[in-house]
Amino acid sequence: MTELSTDRRQPEMPATRWGDPAEAGPLPDSVRGLVGMVFPLGDTPAREDVTVPAPALAAELLDSLRSLLGEEQVIVDDEIRRVRTRGKSTPDLLRQRAGDLSDAPDVVVRPRGHDEVQALLGWAAEHRVAVTPFGGGTAVTGGLAVDRAGFAGVVSLDLGGMRRLLSVDPVSSTAVLEPGLRGPEAEALLAEQGLMLGHYPQSFEFASIGGFAVTRSSGQSSAGYGRFDSMVVGLRVATPSGDVRLGSSPANASGPDLRELFLGSEGAFGVITEVTVRVRPLPEVKVYEGWHWPSFAAGADAMRALAQSDLLPTVLRLSDENETAINLARPDAIGGEGSAGSVASGGCLMIAGYEGTPEAVAAKQAAVTAALEKLGGTALGPEPGESWSEGRFAAPYLRDSLLDVGVLVETLETATFWSKRDELYRAVSAALTETLGEGTLVLCHISHVYATGCSLYFTVATEGGEQPLERWLPAKAAACEAIVACGAAISHHHAVGTDHKPYLAAEIGEVGVAALRAVKAALDPQGVLNPGVLIP
Amino acid sequence: MTELSTDRRQPEMPATRWGDPAEAGPLPDSVRGLVGMVFPLGDTPAREDVTVPAPALAAELLDSLRSLLGEEQVIVDDEIRRVRTRGKSTPDLLRQRAGDLSDAPDVVVRPRGHDEVQALLGWAAEHRVAVTPFGGGTAVTGGLAVDRAGFAGVVSLDLGGMRRLLSVDPVSSTAVLEPGLRGPEAEALLAEQGLMLGHYPQSFEFASIGGFAVTRSSGQSSAGYGRFDSMVVGLRVATPSGDVRLGSSPANASGPDLRELFLGSEGAFGVITEVTVRVRPLPEVKVYEGWHWPSFAAGADAMRALAQSDLLPTVLRLSDENETAINLARPDAIGGEGSAGSVASGGCLMIAGYEGTPEAVAAKQAAVTAALEKLGGTALGPEPGESWSEGRFAAPYLRDSLLDVGVLVETLETATFWSKRDELYRAVSAALTETLGEGTLVLCHISHVYATGCSLYFTVATEGGEQPLERWLPAKAAACEAIVACGAAISHHHAVGTDHKPYLAAEIGEVGVAALRAVKAALDPQGVLNPGVLIP
Repeated sequence: MTELSTDRRQPEMPATRWGDPAEAGPLPDSVRGLVGMVFPLGDTPAREDVTVPAPALAAELLDSLRSLLGEEQVIVDDEIRRVRTRGKSTPDLLRQRAGDLSDAPDVVVRPRGHDEVQALLGWAAEHRVAVTPFGGGTAVTGGLAVDRAGFAGVVSLDLGGMRRLLSVDPVSSTAVLEPGLRGPEAEALLAEQGLMLGHYPQSFEFASIGGFAVTRSSGQSSAGYGRFDSMVVGLRVATPSGDVRLGSSPANASGPDLRELFLGSEGAFGVITEVTVRVRPLPEVKVYEGWHWPSFAAGADAMRALAQSDLLPTVLRLSDENETAINLARPDAIGGEGSAGSVASGGCLMIAGYEGTPEAVAAKQAAVTAALEKLGGTALGPEPGESWSEGRFAAPYLRDSLLDVGVLVETLETATFWSKRDELYRAVSAALTETLGEGTLVLCHISHVYATGCSLYFTVATEGGEQPLERWLPAKAAACEAIVACGAAISHHHAVGTDHKPYLAAEIGEVGVAALRAVKAALDPQGVLNPGVLIP
Repeated sequence: MTELSTDRRQPEMPATRWGDPAEAGPLPDSVRGLVGMVFPLGDTPAREDVTVPAPALAAELLDSLRSLLGEEQVIVDDEIRRVRTRGKSTPDLLRQRAGDLSDAPDVVVRPRGHDEVQALLGWAAEHRVAVTPFGGGTAVTGGLAVDRAGFAGVVSLDLGGMRRLLSVDPVSSTAVLEPGLRGPEAEALLAEQGLMLGHYPQSFEFASIGGFAVTRSSGQSSAGYGRFDSMVVGLRVATPSGDVRLGSSPANASGPDLRELFLGSEGAFGVITEVTVRVRPLPEVKVYEGWHWPSFAAGADAMRALAQSDLLPTVLRLSDENETAINLARPDAIGGEGSAGSVASGGCLMIAGYEGTPEAVAAKQAAVTAALEKLGGTALGPEPGESWSEGRFAAPYLRDSLLDVGVLVETLETATFWSKRDELYRAVSAALTETLGEGTLVLCHISHVYATGCSLYFTVATEGGEQPLERWLPAKAAACEAIVACGAAISHHHAVGTDHKPYLAAEIGEVGVAALRAVKAALDPQGVLNPGVLIP
């Protein structure tokens, strides 16, 4: 068992912004000038003079919680409660920035291991207290906004006290991780043994292992290393009805695969306290490069060809024409030629990345390069790839800076089969632009591909106006309705939460909803786990 | 939509034997001589003079069924009922051979599509009639032996009336298949469009698409094409509570993946009426070859190395020393040298197979060959591979011939992580030999590998004696207990059925069992679907 030393922990994110406060800042003047050419700029800073509602949990319940878990594990500090209010979607941030802390938990509890989680759930069920598991706090679909109606209070179950690498099985290439480990923390512990997990979503620096599991996260290297759910071979879960260990083997025929029932369960069925994952040797070589395609369709068809011939690099992503143009409009790129110069006149940028041993990288890169050239792509060399790699986790910081000057920025994503890709792309783009009106920028990329289909990830930027939240919500609803009308996924890798709940029944049917409700009732009969989240 | 013409249908299997009656026969004299050197040979033919119990279903219920589905879909013929009694495990065959037809269904119903299945389930729930879905009848874990206690009768829901290729999406590389298609039938329909599924379990010639799905089948090409569950991207399921379509996208984060709840559900939650699978182009080249390893452990370590470096051929299987020796003892090989001569003195035979385009096969074969040579393997050329390929579906015929002469033969399989492979192998082997006594042959192979672990498939041959069934059941129980004690999977690709049900709770815990029961109660409140199967 390897403890994470305190000084290696990721910093805590502030209540109103993404990421490490040391990395945050105003828009650079050069970017500000550029953005100002598109949107009217204002000055809309976050309110910091806010009051956190007094805890609603009765004093005797707080006392019994302290007796159960120890004084230090039970935290009622206002600022700590404030930063565990909601996640980091733009609506979450807009509410936080406006000083709306109506969703604040009453108390933050930080158990030190499985047994304390199990004890807490027993206590919560007995006293009808709602429990919302909190990993990295990076949720973007309202998964932390529990419905407290009918409960004696809301406990934020902070998994930050569970950040150990419990064991490594080098023969089987597996490792057992605690759920509170953030992405870089887990990778640092594994790297000490020459290993890695290889899961790099944009939220990587702050999101947690448990969060990756319960939201079916997918990272930027999914083409090579798979989705997070495909990395999981075992789970230990605490539920109000007892605990369960799942994963006798990599795959089996011992009935339905119940790992898949807890993966994506968003804390509604239980709290994952241990995650056994497949690990890999640290790659010796990492190569990222750019490709130019005449159109989004041409690039997407090339991705499809690679996936259908099982010839995928480690990273494969493709920006549409809008996103390509915006990415090129980096202040440091303006006026310059650079290696990306050939896409300045239009078309789409693809990033392909290769990681592994020198031999494996060389072989894969050669095969993919031959295929992409044959399909009509133009190699742009390493510069666009390195530029993407350097900025791969930076977008949420830029969003904060844009919110500060009154520009509304949000993302949403979906997935479908290849034959419906274009229909879905057009429908969601149209829903967003029609709702938000002229002057709205809608960008899109494909960053996760399969033999049978792909994800579509949209970024929207528009004037925030006086009421940015009220301006965004109808656009989000229109996008969701367009997704449902296409028969596509309401989320490819961000989960259901509360934001997508109204659309889930359309996707999994009433029979699917009945199955989820039945499992919920069996494992959490008092309904204390993340009430109002996931299950319609 | 493409119908399967009647003359292209697979023949029906007889009640007491495997496969096509035209292919069955007594042991060749040469084999008989060889087997006689190991086991005392007798003459224990199957009883064919048996009486099928009279149907227990009330006449008025039969009449209402005929009104609902039409006269021709409702079959009470004794022989048709007899061949839909149980599956094809050795215990099933021993009971059938002894004339025990106590598990015979009262009536066989053959719906022509989803709507008729849905109507049948409504009727069954209303009248409390048990329904056991019957695909190819190849079940080997008692999945067709329903518990009729408390029911007005038992209907065998024969899916043989649903054998269409409903649609193909060439862009997404998917096809929608009806569940009653047998393996070769589905491949024949797909081949007309230059496509294939690539799922070849030993039961391939007779098992059905629906059966592959509900048992989480895995085929001989799983290293290259994946398990059957990994090929499934969509399902339509009829349940007594209504129907559901699942699979908005290849993968997503729309809550738990409910496809995984119906895959492996063995007809206990609903009847799968459509399966959408990933398809591939027909391979232009197929190459199978042999490798020699000094020991089972050395060969298994090589498989592990390939899997952990994501460098897998299409087919990869390894026999242990016993199975290698027995396979070599083919009458046509005895005394000859052949290319397998170098393993005659011991060691283990591995089969590696490559399928695809000439370029892809050449590249993969070169890379795997280099890796295997480096790991200490000795290439044996194509002959052992071709020999394996020719006989790949033949073992069940040999079992019948051996049962005819009083030799008891059965198989069982499990899966675990690599670090526990040897412990599991020893434990199961010991349980079998200790229970069955001296003179028992226990053979093993690995035919499904993952980065983190593998399957172990055992074949047992022993003197049948006077009461072969009573002789086998304690050995099977001892093997199951050894599997459970190792924390391994009670089945890698043959499901739970009734045979493995006593061991399921040890694998998925009481919480896992509670989840299954809850789903069952929600979707099948009257419990009419395959009662007694899967769920403890």
